[in-house]
Amino acid sequence: TRKHRIAVIPGDGIGKETTPEGLRVLDAAARRFGFELELKHYDWSCETYAATGKMMPDDGLDQLRDSDSVFLGAVGWPGVPDHVSLWGLLIPIRRGFDQYVNLRPCKLLPGSKSPLANRGPEDIDFYVVRENTEGEYSSVGGRMFPGTDREFVSQQSIMTRIGCDRIMKYAFELAMTRKRKKVTSATKSNGITFTMPYWDERFAAMAKNYPEVTTNEYHIDILCAHFVQHPDWFDVVVGSNLFGDILSDLGPAVAGSIGIAASANINPEKTAPSMFEPVHGSAPDIAGKWIANPIGQIWSGAMMLEHLGEKAAADCITQTIEKLLAEGGPRTRDMGGQAGTVDVGKAIAEAV
Amino acid sequence: TRKHRIAVIPGDGIGKETTPEGLRVLDAAARRFGFELELKHYDWSCETYAATGKMMPDDGLDQLRDSDSVFLGAVGWPGVPDHVSLWGLLIPIRRGFDQYVNLRPCKLLPGSKSPLANRGPEDIDFYVVRENTEGEYSSVGGRMFPGTDREFVSQQSIMTRIGCDRIMKYAFELAMTRKRKKVTSATKSNGITFTMPYWDERFAAMAKNYPEVTTNEYHIDILCAHFVQHPDWFDVVVGSNLFGDILSDLGPAVAGSIGIAASANINPEKTAPSMFEPVHGSAPDIAGKWIANPIGQIWSGAMMLEHLGEKAAADCITQTIEKLLAEGGPRTRDMGGQAGTVDVGKAIAEAV
Ligand SMILES: CC(C)[C@H](C(=O)O)[C@@H](O)C(=O)O
Ligand SMILES: CC(C)[C@H](C(=O)O)[C@@H](O)C(=O)O
Repeated sequence: TRKHRIAVIPGDGIGKETTPEGLRVLDAAARRFGFELELKHYDWSCETYAATGKMMPDDGLDQLRDSDSVFLGAVGWPGVPDHVSLWGLLIPIRRGFDQYVNLRPCKLLPGSKSPLANRGPEDIDFYVVRENTEGEYSSVGGRMFPGTDREFVSQQSIMTRIGCDRIMKYAFELAMTRKRKKVTSATKSNGITFTMPYWDERFAAMAKNYPEVTTNEYHIDILCAHFVQHPDWFDVVVGSNLFGDILSDLGPAVAGSIGIAASANINPEKTAPSMFEPVHGSAPDIAGKWIANPIGQIWSGAMMLEHLGEKAAADCITQTIEKLLAEGGPRTRDMGGQAGTVDVGKAIAEAV
Repeated sequence: TRKHRIAVIPGDGIGKETTPEGLRVLDAAARRFGFELELKHYDWSCETYAATGKMMPDDGLDQLRDSDSVFLGAVGWPGVPDHVSLWGLLIPIRRGFDQYVNLRPCKLLPGSKSPLANRGPEDIDFYVVRENTEGEYSSVGGRMFPGTDREFVSQQSIMTRIGCDRIMKYAFELAMTRKRKKVTSATKSNGITFTMPYWDERFAAMAKNYPEVTTNEYHIDILCAHFVQHPDWFDVVVGSNLFGDILSDLGPAVAGSIGIAASANINPEKTAPSMFEPVHGSAPDIAGKWIANPIGQIWSGAMMLEHLGEKAAADCITQTIEKLLAEGGPRTRDMGGQAGTVDVGKAIAEAV
């Protein structure tokens, strides 16, 4: 039988509660579709940091390297600054494994509620493809004249030809698998006049290779407005690290699914493991109560299976989620129900 | 009588159609409230560029300098690249006159339609205060290794102590004039780790001076989501040049007023003229048909009067707009009516 090696990092807060439910459903899918999952658990988290001064061991990436995928819960906890928790665990994995695609579905699920008026599942169904390694999240910058009136900080945004071309290629390839075959580029070349015109240039160059794909581009300000006004316009949206970050929260927000959205950090060439995580964070306010919604985690598990070549199993999980929501299966509080994290996980696992 | 000198730049496209209506209403307000407007007209536009190779003359800023305010329509036209039109006219005025505040009201007007479900005028009424001179829109950057696989571009984001402190001071002062007295800061210090933590630091320092003001901060990704999910949370939102740009399109979009939103580019110390312009652009698709909605222009005129110390007149104009909308006065097509640009302008002018 096919075997997939999964590194599991529940992380912090509700990550510890949702990951087991994700695994429960993955396990059900493995049994039904005849593959095997070999799990390795890692307790790396803000607790590890409190105990050891590090979010993960120095050889952390090496420990993960020969797994096929990383299945992550959430990272971050009050009291541990983001530059420690995120830059000590999440970001090093994204970059160290060259997971240059951050892929996030924006989908209005049946039975979930969009804040928009008069929008149904047929109106919101697109992907945000975010560049995940360079751009505005750079490590080049600094501060000068500290403590004086001349004080300033500076941070470079860096866009490389390699970085732009490969993310755009991914977006176009994804569009080719879809019905509408449309790619929208997020730019701001009218204001940010060195990097963004280059982004536009590479987008236009890549578009030439895909004559069947329709393209357009919007400046990020009006694009955000269009997400709210016309979410039905979009099929695949490609953006820089920052713009993709913004759009991939805004997209699920307009779809009413931000609490249950999934995301994939993908190394398409599989030269290193990819990582799959829900969009929500560790949610300290509800952690420990076992009321967190596990759907984002479970949906991320489906994205993982798709990446691992288990497309039938992946589709089965997403369809099961949609069916349960549409038919009024158990729901956690955020969706107006009374069910606990485990109830929802069990219901989906059983249906699979 | 009090006299205000106004430089009028209709610019391109529908700017040429909306500016006269803005002036019509300003003129009505002047007569009613007993002040005088001395207008100087400038035809600077993409047409000027076609004729002279320049968007404005070399001494353009000097020509404007001794007016009290600039009243602008819209800048930009197909065929003239943004870096020519915007960077040849709009941006040089913003920067040259140190209009470091870009202020945009986000308001659900009675009778206008928000794309959000179940939101009324009481839910959306806040200001975005955008830094308008530095940050991500910088002039430091470049390209290296062109045409090779090593090609990259780089652009610095620059935040100065002076630049951060003065925009935050403006935001806090504005909050002090409002009922809720609340300032929200847009950050991304978890991802953009040199500039944004500094922004947070200056925000925290300024907050100390305003113990009566409630503050909070959100990363820009989730903040955009909150604009859609909880627009009622916000009172004054302060952001960098880019984040402010995004939020001040998204805010009017959720309020359903992006076609009629107003904006002010303010030099609070009045060391140079401030500039007032609608948020919409030159709209080449409808230009020449005289169907453009002039409300954004008229509302910008009201912001201008407030800046010039004519608060009673300013309030009268905004109240008139709200009343006409609520009572079903003439509307342009974008608001579901049949009226032309001039009809709406005349109706508001008469009511004032
Ligand atoms: C046209 C463009 C440069 C401008 C900006 O981003 O500043 C516009 O979007 C605005 O908000 O006034
Ligand atoms: C936590 C933060 C650094 C991260 C990001 O901006 O990449 C998060 O917002 C995300 O989108 O995964």
